[in-house]
Amino acid sequence: MNEIKIFSPATVANVACGFDVLGFCLDSIGDEMVIRKTDKKGIHITKIKNFDLPYETELNVAGVSALAMYDALDVDFGFEIEIYKNIKPGSGIGSSAASAVGSVFGMNELLGRPFNKTQLTEFAIKGEALASKCEHADNLAPALFGGFTLVKSVSPLKILEIPSPDNLYATIIHPQIEIKTSESRAVLPKEVALSDAIAQWANLGSLVHALHTSDYNLISDSLKDVIVEPYRSKLIPHFNDVKQAVLNAGALGAGISGSGPSIFSLSIGQETANKVKETMQSVYSNTGIEFDIHVSKINTQGVKII
Amino acid sequence: MNEIKIFSPATVANVACGFDVLGFCLDSIGDEMVIRKTDKKGIHITKIKNFDLPYETELNVAGVSALAMYDALDVDFGFEIEIYKNIKPGSGIGSSAASAVGSVFGMNELLGRPFNKTQLTEFAIKGEALASKCEHADNLAPALFGGFTLVKSVSPLKILEIPSPDNLYATIIHPQIEIKTSESRAVLPKEVALSDAIAQWANLGSLVHALHTSDYNLISDSLKDVIVEPYRSKLIPHFNDVKQAVLNAGALGAGISGSGPSIFSLSIGQETANKVKETMQSVYSNTGIEFDIHVSKINTQGVKII
Repeated sequence: MNEIKIFSPATVANVACGFDVLGFCLDSIGDEMVIRKTDKKGIHITKIKNFDLPYETELNVAGVSALAMYDALDVDFGFEIEIYKNIKPGSGIGSSAASAVGSVFGMNELLGRPFNKTQLTEFAIKGEALASKCEHADNLAPALFGGFTLVKSVSPLKILEIPSPDNLYATIIHPQIEIKTSESRAVLPKEVALSDAIAQWANLGSLVHALHTSDYNLISDSLKDVIVEPYRSKLIPHFNDVKQAVLNAGALGAGISGSGPSIFSLSIGQETANKVKETMQSVYSNTGIEFDIHVSKINTQGVKII
Repeated sequence: MNEIKIFSPATVANVACGFDVLGFCLDSIGDEMVIRKTDKKGIHITKIKNFDLPYETELNVAGVSALAMYDALDVDFGFEIEIYKNIKPGSGIGSSAASAVGSVFGMNELLGRPFNKTQLTEFAIKGEALASKCEHADNLAPALFGGFTLVKSVSPLKILEIPSPDNLYATIIHPQIEIKTSESRAVLPKEVALSDAIAQWANLGSLVHALHTSDYNLISDSLKDVIVEPYRSKLIPHFNDVKQAVLNAGALGAGISGSGPSIFSLSIGQETANKVKETMQSVYSNTGIEFDIHVSKINTQGVKII
């Protein structure tokens, strides 16, 4: 096998109470990439569709993660990468993570899987760092492992796979506005009240328990963010309106996807997730802001060959 | 049945990363109490052994929780309480919680269990508040439910029962020094670094996952407290020496039990737990400070009739 095509999924990081550690994987939106073994040594990006991203390997997220892996190999051949980008950069659903994951996953498959998923995450972190200026794995881990993941620590890298109930669906709205990463960082406090921190870890511990026990009521009760949402939600137009409306429509909970501007919600079953979609549409259709909405089952497989 | 004798167990609250929310139940140490239905209305404490505690119902922790329950009843009889106190007040292993739980558990049994365990916790909180000046349930919940519990919130009261592996043992040393509750509170910061809070909830989420999956390595890796231990450990003589020594002896982890001065550790199996006991003894035997050590399997039943 000298060439494969892969699907590298979008992901939701933070998940309300799990700031900086929790994430889950989506099914209905992701990038496609072709990875090809070549006689020419090195990593070469030969095609990029849909978005204007750099072809220079060292300046491209997929290229940088591929290079990190390539440097760990001792081979007399190289790889070409074609990127069919479907996840809009800056949308808050793991666009850079999908790129970073796709190249190393594809190369690893072509090589006969010399690396495990945690090792692939280590390589992908280098690509992600190009985009986000810091080494984190809260989108990479769910893209590679699928399902819900908890990044216990980045150094050393320790990723936990948290089970989730079968009938859990996500609905995500992406308002087409730009929030600068620097701005979404700047609004965060360096210190937080101990009482708020306690509430947050009570909720995260409860959410992990709820996912293990398929307790939808407890999932709903745990999807609260008292630390970050009060600050970052101000950067997202109509955030509170959307959140209240989707809760009224039957969603288990809602919050900021990654650092925004996307807003995620979780629901029991596709029917409710679609109703949540209609509710999001009705809130946003009067705002004059362009938007996309995705409905997706939780993707328990992660990145895959197609 | 007009009289029963019960065993109300000691408990370990906080459990390193679970400050204010997590706790577990012990088997080898606890109070015994006799609860008796009487023609005389009201709650009367008729015997207290081993420690000098008040007989006035309104001034006694077991009395106050009993009164809270009694006020919710409409009965033409009363209850007598005898307390055989084995858990030293102020030891940090849930002495007041055992008292608060024992009376309401016993009364509920004599009445044919009109209340569930969460309702009993609500009554017991009133007794606990007499001792600790605030309403919390992180010792009450494991004493009533057994095993590991996570108090998701106090108002409304929401208690989660977290499973734990069969072969988990605790070793607890109680140095016979007094730490004033006011002092152990005063050393805590009102605000904490966001980065520390993130590390703490990553560890708590991981510990909940580790308990669900019986992953001893992950339990070990998650038993870390970057928020409270740096402050409170200074109030406990030789804390760091004990902690390092028990880790060297094979314990999975160690930390402050409740607000101290007791130090808990967790181990795989009774043999290692006993080795940890010897290690604690050797550290403390040269200090001139009196101490008790308890080795206990995790008590999955909680308070019980004997």
